[in-house]
This record gives sequence, C-alpha cells and structure tokens, in this order.
Amino acid sequence: MRGISRRDFLSAVGVAGGAGAMFATMGALGLAPTAMGAPAYVPPRPSDFRLTGRAAAKVVVLGGGIAGLASAYELGKAGYDCTVLEARDIAGGRNFTVRGGTRQTDLDGNTQVARFADGEYMNAGPARIAQWMVTLDYCRELGIPIEVFTNENASALIYNEQAGMTAPVRYRTAKADMYGYVGELLAKATNQGALDGDLTAVDKERLLTFLQDWGSLGKTDYRYTGSFRRGFSPDPGAADQTGTALGPPPSLSDVFASNVGRTFSFEFEYQYAMLMFQPVGGMDRIPAALVREIGPGRVRTGCVVTGITNRDDGVSVTYICEGVQRRIDADYCISAMPPNITARIPHNLGADVQAALAAFPVEKVGKIGLEYRSRWWETDYRIYGGITETDMDVEHIWYPSHGYHGPRGVLIGYYNTKEDAVAYGQLTPPQREARAVAQGVKIHGSKYRTELASSFSVAWHRTPHIESGWSILFGTQPYELLNRPQGRVYFAGDWLTWLVTWQAGAFDSARRVVTELHQRVLKT
Amino acid sequence: MRGISRRDFLSAVGVAGGAGAMFATMGALGLAPTAMGAPAYVPPRPSDFRLTGRAAAKVVVLGGGIAGLASAYELGKAGYDCTVLEARDIAGGRNFTVRGGTRQTDLDGNTQVARFADGEYMNAGPARIAQWMVTLDYCRELGIPIEVFTNENASALIYNEQAGMTAPVRYRTAKADMYGYVGELLAKATNQGALDGDLTAVDKERLLTFLQDWGSLGKTDYRYTGSFRRGFSPDPGAADQTGTALGPPPSLSDVFASNVGRTFSFEFEYQYAMLMFQPVGGMDRIPAALVREIGPGRVRTGCVVTGITNRDDGVSVTYICEGVQRRIDADYCISAMPPNITARIPHNLGADVQAALAAFPVEKVGKIGLEYRSRWWETDYRIYGGITETDMDVEHIWYPSHGYHGPRGVLIGYYNTKEDAVAYGQLTPPQREARAVAQGVKIHGSKYRTELASSFSVAWHRTPHIESGWSILFGTQPYELLNRPQGRVYFAGDWLTWLVTWQAGAFDSARRVVTELHQRVLKT
Repeated sequence: MRGISRRDFLSAVGVAGGAGAMFATMGALGLAPTAMGAPAYVPPRPSDFRLTGRAAAKVVVLGGGIAGLASAYELGKAGYDCTVLEARDIAGGRNFTVRGGTRQTDLDGNTQVARFADGEYMNAGPARIAQWMVTLDYCRELGIPIEVFTNENASALIYNEQAGMTAPVRYRTAKADMYGYVGELLAKATNQGALDGDLTAVDKERLLTFLQDWGSLGKTDYRYTGSFRRGFSPDPGAADQTGTALGPPPSLSDVFASNVGRTFSFEFEYQYAMLMFQPVGGMDRIPAALVREIGPGRVRTGCVVTGITNRDDGVSVTYICEGVQRRIDADYCISAMPPNITARIPHNLGADVQAALAAFPVEKVGKIGLEYRSRWWETDYRIYGGITETDMDVEHIWYPSHGYHGPRGVLIGYYNTKEDAVAYGQLTPPQREARAVAQGVKIHGSKYRTELASSFSVAWHRTPHIESGWSILFGTQPYELLNRPQGRVYFAGDWLTWLVTWQAGAFDSARRVVTELHQRVLKT
Repeated sequence: MRGISRRDFLSAVGVAGGAGAMFATMGALGLAPTAMGAPAYVPPRPSDFRLTGRAAAKVVVLGGGIAGLASAYELGKAGYDCTVLEARDIAGGRNFTVRGGTRQTDLDGNTQVARFADGEYMNAGPARIAQWMVTLDYCRELGIPIEVFTNENASALIYNEQAGMTAPVRYRTAKADMYGYVGELLAKATNQGALDGDLTAVDKERLLTFLQDWGSLGKTDYRYTGSFRRGFSPDPGAADQTGTALGPPPSLSDVFASNVGRTFSFEFEYQYAMLMFQPVGGMDRIPAALVREIGPGRVRTGCVVTGITNRDDGVSVTYICEGVQRRIDADYCISAMPPNITARIPHNLGADVQAALAAFPVEKVGKIGLEYRSRWWETDYRIYGGITETDMDVEHIWYPSHGYHGPRGVLIGYYNTKEDAVAYGQLTPPQREARAVAQGVKIHGSKYRTELASSFSVAWHRTPHIESGWSILFGTQPYELLNRPQGRVYFAGDWLTWLVTWQAGAFDSARRVVTELHQRVLKT
C-alpha cells in the first residue's frame, strides 16, 4: 500500500537484487513466459495420494483473511479437511469492503453503520492489484471480473499546502512544468559542454533530441516557455474556438519551491505503476469467492481463538464461538492471524516463537469513505478517477474507479499512516469526517462539504481482531523463524513475505505453506 | 488520433495560446468549474418558439457520422423535423465497431466478413476519449456506460527495430533507465556548478532532492546503477523469495541509442494523457444511442447523396436509395459528410465552396484487429491492456481494454498512417494479416501466429463513402469559409474544428451549427 515507506521497503528488497544480464537479453529476461513471477506453483491434487496410499489430513486454519482462506482453498483442492476460524463476523480480514448496512465497532467503542446507497462501496483495506501479482491469477481462477483501478490520473491534482501552494494544480500541468525546466537545464548544460566528459557527440545529439520532445522545449533555444501539455481553458473546439493554453508557466524557482515533483516517482514503482486493477463490485469479491469454493460451512465466523497446543501427533485449538468455549483437534494448524494478535494467544510453541511474534511492529493506518450525492469531481473538474496528492494530514484523496457518471460516488477522503492515522484514529467518526472535509474543501471548495451524504471510517490499528494496518519485519530472524513450521503449526500471511501489505503476499505465503505441509503429509 | 503528427497539430493550435495567469491563480484557471471546456452550450428547446410564434424547421442532414447524428439529435430536442441520409448501411461513419458478422467491401473489391466470437469487437475508428472531451458528456446524457481505455501501460513494450534493438523492453524498464541517466547527468552538472548562473542555492538543493527520487539515484553519489523500477524476475514473494531485480542496466550510450525515449512524451499530451475512456461494449454504442434518440425512421441508411441545390427559400437534395433516385426538400441542410466526398457531389454553392472542399487533404489510415483464441498477453506477459510502441510499419500494437481474463481477445495489430497505411492498404486482407503477424512475432514470438483465430482490417482511405482517415486544414481560408453557412447549407464535422480526428470535434461542430441554425430560425 502507498502508506509504507517505499524507499525503506525497496532498500530492504535490494539486498537480494543484482544478478545481471546483457542489454540484448535483458528485455527477454523479464518477458519470457517461463521467467515470470515466482517459481511455478503446483496445487495439491487428490491424485497425489494415489501412489502413496495416504489420505489428506485435517487442518485447522486460524484467521479467515486472504492467507487463511487461500490456504484452505488450496488444500481443499486435494481433499484436505479444513476448518477456518475467523474472529470477525465476516471473512476477508483487512480485505474489507464497506457497503450500506456494514456495521463495525472499534476498540474505543465507536459504532458505525454505513449508510451508503445501493451499489456504493469503499475498499477499506487493499484496493489495488498490479498486473504481475498472483492476485490476478486468483481473480481469473475464481471467475471474478476485474476493471482498471485508477492509480494515476493526469487530471487529478497536487496540493502542497506546506510548500506554500495557494491553489491546487493538475498533475498534467505540474509535470509539464517540472519536465520542461529539467529538460531546459540539462539541454543547457549539455550545449555548454559541461557534460562532454560523460557524453559522446552522438550521445549529446540523441539526448538533445529526446529533451526537446520530452520537455516540450523551443526548437532552436531549448527553452521551456510553457506547453499545451499544461492544459487549456477553454478547450479547443469548433470553427474559431482554438482553445487557450494555460499559461504562462510559473518560474523555475516557483515550480521547484511548490514541490510538485515530490510524488512523480510514485508511478514508476513496480508495485504502483499503472495499469492496476480491482475486482468489479468490490475487493471482497475475492474472499467471498474463496469462501464459496472452500464451502461455507468450513469457514466459521465469530470464532475467537483462545489457545494453540502443539503435540507430536496433532494440534488442539481452543476458541470461543457464540459465547461457548470449544476445541478443535487437527493434524496440522495454519495460523494466518496477524502476528500482533497471535502474540496474545496462549500457546506451547516456546519462548522463541513468542518473542518472534511480539517483535513484529504494528502500523497505524486509516481510511475514510466520503459518499457524495453527486459526482461533482467528474462534472465540475473532469476528474474521472485517480488520486490527488497532498502534503496535508489526509495525505491522499482517491476518486472512485467505478460507477462513472452514476448518481453518487464514494471518495477516499484520507488514506494515511503513522502520526496522521493516529490523529484521525483518536477522533470519533463524525470528528474524522469534519476534519477530512475541512481539508478537502481547501482543494475542491464548498461542494466537498455541501454534497456530502455520509461517511464511514476505519482505523485499522483500532479495529478488533486486527489492530494493525500491516507489520513489516521481513528478512529478519523473527521473520525467518516464523517462516518455518513450529511443530505442526505453520504461520502464513503477507507479513511473512517480501510483498508485505499486499494480498499477493498473503496468497504467496499460503501457497508456500500449503506446498510444505502437503509434501510433509505425503512423506509421513 | 495518435497517427496525426502531434507536433504539427499542436504547433497549429499554438497560434492561439498564451493569455497569462499568475502562479497562485493558475491552478484555479484550469480548475474552476465555469472555466471548463468551451463556452456553455444551450441546446434548442421547444419553448424557444413560444414567444416568437415560429415553428421548428425541416432540416436534411447529409451523412450519419457523429457530426450528422449529433446535429439531428440536438435539433430534435426542439422539435425540428430532421432527416439524416447515410450512404453506408450503418450509421456512425468512422465510428465503426467491427463484430462477428460485420461485412465490408472496400474500393478495391476486397470483401471481409468478421468472424470474431460473440462479445469480441474492434473499434476500427475512434477508440479513446479524454476526460475533458464533450464526448463523455454525451455518454452521460445518453446513458452509455464507460470504462477506462488503457492508453498507456508500464508493462507494455517498446521495440525499436530500426534503432537496433534485438528484444523488446517494457515501458517501466525503459523509463527507469532513461530517467535514471537523465537524472544522473543533470545532478552531475548541477553539483559541478555548471548551472550556477541559472539556479540559486535553494533551487539546486530542491532540484537534487527531486532528481534523486525521480531518477532513483544513489544517495551520496547521485549515480544511476539500476532500480527496482526496472522490474523483477522472479518477483518478490513468500519467505526467502526476495525477488531478483532485472539488471544491471545497459550503458547510457546504449539506452540513448535504443531510442526508447522516443514515445515518452505521448502520455503528456492533452489529448492522450491517461486516464482515457471508452464506452462499454464498443464505440458504436454512441451512434446507436443517437439513432435511438433521433428516432430510427429519421436516419436512412444506404442513401447516397447525388446533388445539393441551395435556393432562397430552401434546399433540395437528391439521393439514390435502393437504386431509386429520390429528392428531399427542406428549409435547411447540414452537410456532415467528409469534405473529400462532398467535393464530388454536384451543387450550386459556387466555385469558392468547391475549391475549399477540394482543398482538404485526405489522410491514409489503417487498422487491423487480430482475434486470438487465448489471451496470452495477459497470462504469459502480464500485459493487461495498453499499447506497445514500435518503429516498424505496424507502428502501434494495442492490447484490448475490455474482456480481461476472458477466453479470447482482439489486439489491434497495426494502427498506422501515411506510407505505412498505404503499404498495408494495397494488400489483400489475408496479406495484411500475414504481414502484421510477421512483425508481431518479432516482439511476442510464435503465439502471435499460432493463437490467431481471425482478423479484420480497415483501410479508411479505401473505404466507400469515407475514403479518408481524416482531413487536417484548420485555421486556413477554406476552413473559415466552410465554417460559415453557404446560403441554407451548413457544414459540420471534426474537420471544421481544432479537434480534428476526434469525435469531440464532430460533436462540437454539430453544436455550433445547430446553435447558428436555430438562432437564424428564431429570427426569420
């Protein structure tokens, strides 16, 4: 998710990068079908047991988020007898889509019931899927239609209040100006010979040709003096309606000072580059389909795990369901709950496991859905989806990627982390709404308040049975320990992957655990 | 459309740009709802006639493309008696969606019948709509659902054969390398003081901060040595699956020589920047809705205009329908045919009008739809939509923006203009298919051939009753003359706008002509 510090994430990932390839084959490296994604996954099959004479085992899965559901789904393909225990009243975990009627009470006692109109929803947790992610394979396999998630939009806005901006600018305008000035500066240095030690004559010619086109620079002077790329008002049209280009651009110093380039690199990142996708109708189409395939009777909601006992010949799990203490015995257990929740549950897996679970940090994350009774961002601003970036405490404002031209729509009014998420999370839901709306009014004016119909907010760190946005500790000793089975208990979740915060991580963790468990069963 | 030389187009548009605004208000200029788009359009209303006592007139519209249909639709709102004569067997003009069963015979006698499976289609003419375009307003007004048109995709490819590339690279990889080296060069020049005359100390600091993030440069040395933005193979995943970053990058000279930056500016252009949109189900949902609103009996297909006679009290138009010569008399005429077609029809509008019509040039444009029996670009390449750019004669390859994960799909195998369109247009449809497939195989390998199910190609310059992709002559004397009514004959079409090649131009031209005609009727 966006909130994570990408620099830190990628720096950590970077430890492993580096195996090289020559230019000619480089493209092919990333393109050859066999080289795509992780090592080929082969799901367990009923036929796997024919030769061995063994049978599928009984597995209890703790936590009905994506990792837990995917584990039960994959094991179910080979006939494993799986039971999923989910503490919340609906499966999916952080994959949580809020619709009209959705009710939630947080740890501070705030109860919200969403009043969204029919067809309106917000994906309160994961909301975007990159093309390379295994999540799309599950959408295909499960028959879940997908559509573009609008992660970037040239018509969306940038508003850096702290940098002194007094009005938002569109991404297209900001980009034209930044790239124009960057191009002009580099062309100047190149033409003045400042880079002669780095560039051959041919390099220089090619670079200048590129910069002229890329920066929309003057044909002879390589200067940036504005561009049609900034936009028009009014637009070009019929007869003598030539359109009026927005301009002239602010000075180089003013553009740099506005800090509009701060978020340009977002769209380059491997996880965030467009095109991105979402299930049609809400992200919870994924857990709903998994539950359907697992068999609804096997996923027990409202069941809170109270103890895990590993034995030589099996696992016992105690839990409370509808006020009654129960126990389930199984051959194996997959614990797919968040580490911070698991750390509170009595178990006999030892001090090292307990220390490892407790080591995983908790991230504060918040989101609010603002339902409007008109889609004024489309009609008034011609913004059809995408994200407006701010340096205010709301951080990002998302316009909906579905329901275009419909009667209503739900904006994400904030999606924030750390201190911003703490600040909003401490407020009551009406206070959060008021604060988020006051920020949005600075960008979009009074309709941001007057057209509001309802809202629903989630503070993940204050949400029962989850209590965290995500937990980042990959590549460390606790991470490695919990990625190994502890007796007959396996751990699964995005927090045990290099794709932490992503459903793809939860899916891949499930696949890994399922593969290991299945191989063990076949050998036993 | 992409095929048009954007530089030339924008240079022409540029004549009119320039009215300035200060930085603080600049954002607002392009953002204020009242400043959006062209001057507010008010459609004719029945009530307009109440005070004057006059009645709506009878209007014959020549050509059932978007301009003609929109004219009849708008006039119909006030009760005008409109008849649309369309030479082809279906309304829409270049807004032409090919589905299974679509039949077309070109001027060279090639007859094609599309064999696409149910649900598969290609938009052979206009295919994309920018957020600011009036076309979206018509989609909303007419109740046509829209979805994202995937005009750009970081996972799509670049393959510059003429530049010596031996394998395609993904956009994300090419962009990481170009921006990495551009950033490194500018950081170096800046740090060496080469731009001290242009930059204050604060400017320099801000620029370096930007370049480091934007180019993914080293934290202390500002060097580009590769980036996770290039992509991974395999991808990050569970446990010890850290992912392997593609790398190392080719040298600066190799990157520049590959000319991958050639098309980077495409996504900055006002007409092409994402997000873009398309009607769900095919672009012809628009003419279909217009015909429905106009009233099907008023749109007569298969009727070829043979003469236009302007008189003081009306207009007479002769035409051939089902082999029979007919005549229609009306108060006014809107000629919404392509200028090259109109120039061949006898009329009494004078030599100046004839010369002006004949002055409009004809553009050669071709497109082929390649239907595949699997969506291998999604499963094997993880490319979900977008455009692969080449410097080969196919120019662009489009992946479909709909039907993700479906059983089949239609690629646009070429979308080309000028000599490339002529070369393909001269071939028979099977020859076009073979040539396009041979080019695509260089990029995608053998599946580009073996998975092919069928194809359908259009050479617009060889298509009866159209015979041109588009006609660019805006801002000239012939353009100005034909934008004025000639007696009781008005001309309409995208060729009479500063949005030539776009449906938005056709709509805006129709609005303008309808407004002028209506004002004249009210005054008469």
